[in-house]
Amino acid sequence: MATSGKVIRCRAAVAWGPNQPLVVEEIEVAPPMAHEVRIKIVATALCHSDLHVLKGEMLTVTFPTVLGHEAAGIVESVGSGVTNVKPGDKVIPLFMRQCGECRFCLHPESNFCVKNRHEVLPRLTCKGQNLMQFIGMSTFSEYTVVDDISVVKISDAAPLNRVCLLGCGISTGYGAAINTAKVVRPGSTCAVFGLGAVGLAAVMGCKAAGATRIIAVDINKDKFEKVKVFGATDFVNPKDHSKPIHEVLVEMTEGGVDFSLECVGNPELIKSAFESCVRSFGVSVVVGYTQEDMSIKPVTFLTGRTWKGSVFGGYKGMESIPKLVDEYLSKKLKLDEFVSHTLPLDRVNEAIDLLTQGKSIRTVLEMSTPQ
Amino acid sequence: MATSGKVIRCRAAVAWGPNQPLVVEEIEVAPPMAHEVRIKIVATALCHSDLHVLKGEMLTVTFPTVLGHEAAGIVESVGSGVTNVKPGDKVIPLFMRQCGECRFCLHPESNFCVKNRHEVLPRLTCKGQNLMQFIGMSTFSEYTVVDDISVVKISDAAPLNRVCLLGCGISTGYGAAINTAKVVRPGSTCAVFGLGAVGLAAVMGCKAAGATRIIAVDINKDKFEKVKVFGATDFVNPKDHSKPIHEVLVEMTEGGVDFSLECVGNPELIKSAFESCVRSFGVSVVVGYTQEDMSIKPVTFLTGRTWKGSVFGGYKGMESIPKLVDEYLSKKLKLDEFVSHTLPLDRVNEAIDLLTQGKSIRTVLEMSTPQ
Repeated sequence: MATSGKVIRCRAAVAWGPNQPLVVEEIEVAPPMAHEVRIKIVATALCHSDLHVLKGEMLTVTFPTVLGHEAAGIVESVGSGVTNVKPGDKVIPLFMRQCGECRFCLHPESNFCVKNRHEVLPRLTCKGQNLMQFIGMSTFSEYTVVDDISVVKISDAAPLNRVCLLGCGISTGYGAAINTAKVVRPGSTCAVFGLGAVGLAAVMGCKAAGATRIIAVDINKDKFEKVKVFGATDFVNPKDHSKPIHEVLVEMTEGGVDFSLECVGNPELIKSAFESCVRSFGVSVVVGYTQEDMSIKPVTFLTGRTWKGSVFGGYKGMESIPKLVDEYLSKKLKLDEFVSHTLPLDRVNEAIDLLTQGKSIRTVLEMSTPQ
Repeated sequence: MATSGKVIRCRAAVAWGPNQPLVVEEIEVAPPMAHEVRIKIVATALCHSDLHVLKGEMLTVTFPTVLGHEAAGIVESVGSGVTNVKPGDKVIPLFMRQCGECRFCLHPESNFCVKNRHEVLPRLTCKGQNLMQFIGMSTFSEYTVVDDISVVKISDAAPLNRVCLLGCGISTGYGAAINTAKVVRPGSTCAVFGLGAVGLAAVMGCKAAGATRIIAVDINKDKFEKVKVFGATDFVNPKDHSKPIHEVLVEMTEGGVDFSLECVGNPELIKSAFESCVRSFGVSVVVGYTQEDMSIKPVTFLTGRTWKGSVFGGYKGMESIPKLVDEYLSKKLKLDEFVSHTLPLDRVNEAIDLLTQGKSIRTVLEMSTPQ
């Protein structure tokens, strides 16, 4: 492309500091170095993790930064040594890297590459300042640069304003049910706590894995109609009950659910999800993010419960994301139903307000630069 | 037998109250009712759980009681409806019942029968008082009565003063490695915290499951020679290190062990065992018993660790204990090496002192009544 090898000037939503509105600025995006890929972002959605950063809750992130990590785009140019993608490819950037060589990449059940820990050199600048690339991504920008182990080619047929959702939230919830909880027994009973996009995707995952009873738990009763679309069979609103919610679920299921998934990141709810699962063989999966402590009695493990967690649904992105895209294209996986709003990048702060207020499931930000 | 249908008078070690020495008394043992089995106990070992009760730490147990639950004996008589054992059979009583019909018994990975919760009617009396049967057992007695779903026939060739150990501690540790942790990958690295009988059995289980590196952790350096016998390859004494022990293990194993098993029941050590396992796919098993609380950050799950627990090594006793006995008879499983002391029932308080002071692995109490 004509821009190859040159600095690109484009628009990005810059977070100058915690708890401040994002500001759409003109930034500079450096050409990709060896094993780097410059991507023209076409669509990017807003995820709760972006809000955690903006609130200053992820202490490893420094400002100024460009948020955004749930995206899809087209490769603009590649640095030397890049073999997995080429200019013009439709791609999804992966916030979980995959070097393919480390102890974790070689393990069949791990998606945590050692290179996730590596510092990313900033390729984005604005007004003379380096912009930190949040988890190596920064997709709230018309262009960004990522490592080649952080990007995967997907089908040319994929609508980028839908498959962008597979870059984080939907894969996280869906995979938590399928890969982490391994909800595989016919007739399993599941409970999903929290019905944001991740929770809805977890319900969809439980359904796909063959669960016959899926109890959706949320304090917002308006969510029930939505979650039915994804396969929930029961809805429990903790506000309707005076007793602890895990006691309600244990009674409903004659001893507890087979699988529970916490998709909020609230310590009390994480504990409640654990205690909702059946004492001898129940599995509870922590999906929500929190840095808070919680208190438990280890004796609650002794009867045989399992407690686990996952990031990005346990998916190894390089192999799995193209397959999930194909599943969407063949209508095995829902994505359209998660998109509650579509806005241009300029209105990113409206998207933040909608998510903060619980009024959106996913807002997709579409970039205005012509393709 | 001549005693069938009659009350048997025999000796038993009675715990009249918490934190008091046991007293060997003459007691009365009622004939078995329907679906009950009266067993002549030949050998019984002392387990830490007996000490927990004696210290008043298991609040569901009331005094006076007869402790003991790790035992082997011979069926003296059976009540009506008993089909799984007959007089003269060598048996091991099972503190985890198995009705074979409930949700838990029918689940392939559960050994927690709903009937574990049922009250046991006292069949033992002394000086006009009912003696509570600790977890339906009370094997510190020449005779006891158990439910038919609490006893399993074993090989006639089994030496009862050895296979009695399979009634609790050895099965608990061995099964925690084999069934609960599922240490199945060739080349796995394991850490076992606490080298009492349960911990030694866990080391033996890790070895049997194919682990190539087994790190044994204890503050008693005298344990190292013993644990080598069971397959440990490395020994770590927390007293030799100034940094937290999980950091030592993470450094030793370039990121953490694949499997860790806590066999003490200390909240700090349970946490340390969890944090010793590798972040993305490590599995930590809680085997030790404690009623204390502990504090954790749920975010430590998010990278993919699994935390679980089990009772009685996850074994369904009816199917598994006879097989473990056979494994011992064919020298696939060690038992002799766990027996550090053998004493008559009269000296039960010496056995308690030895275990409390960490001077014994297992003391087998042999009953003096002629067989």
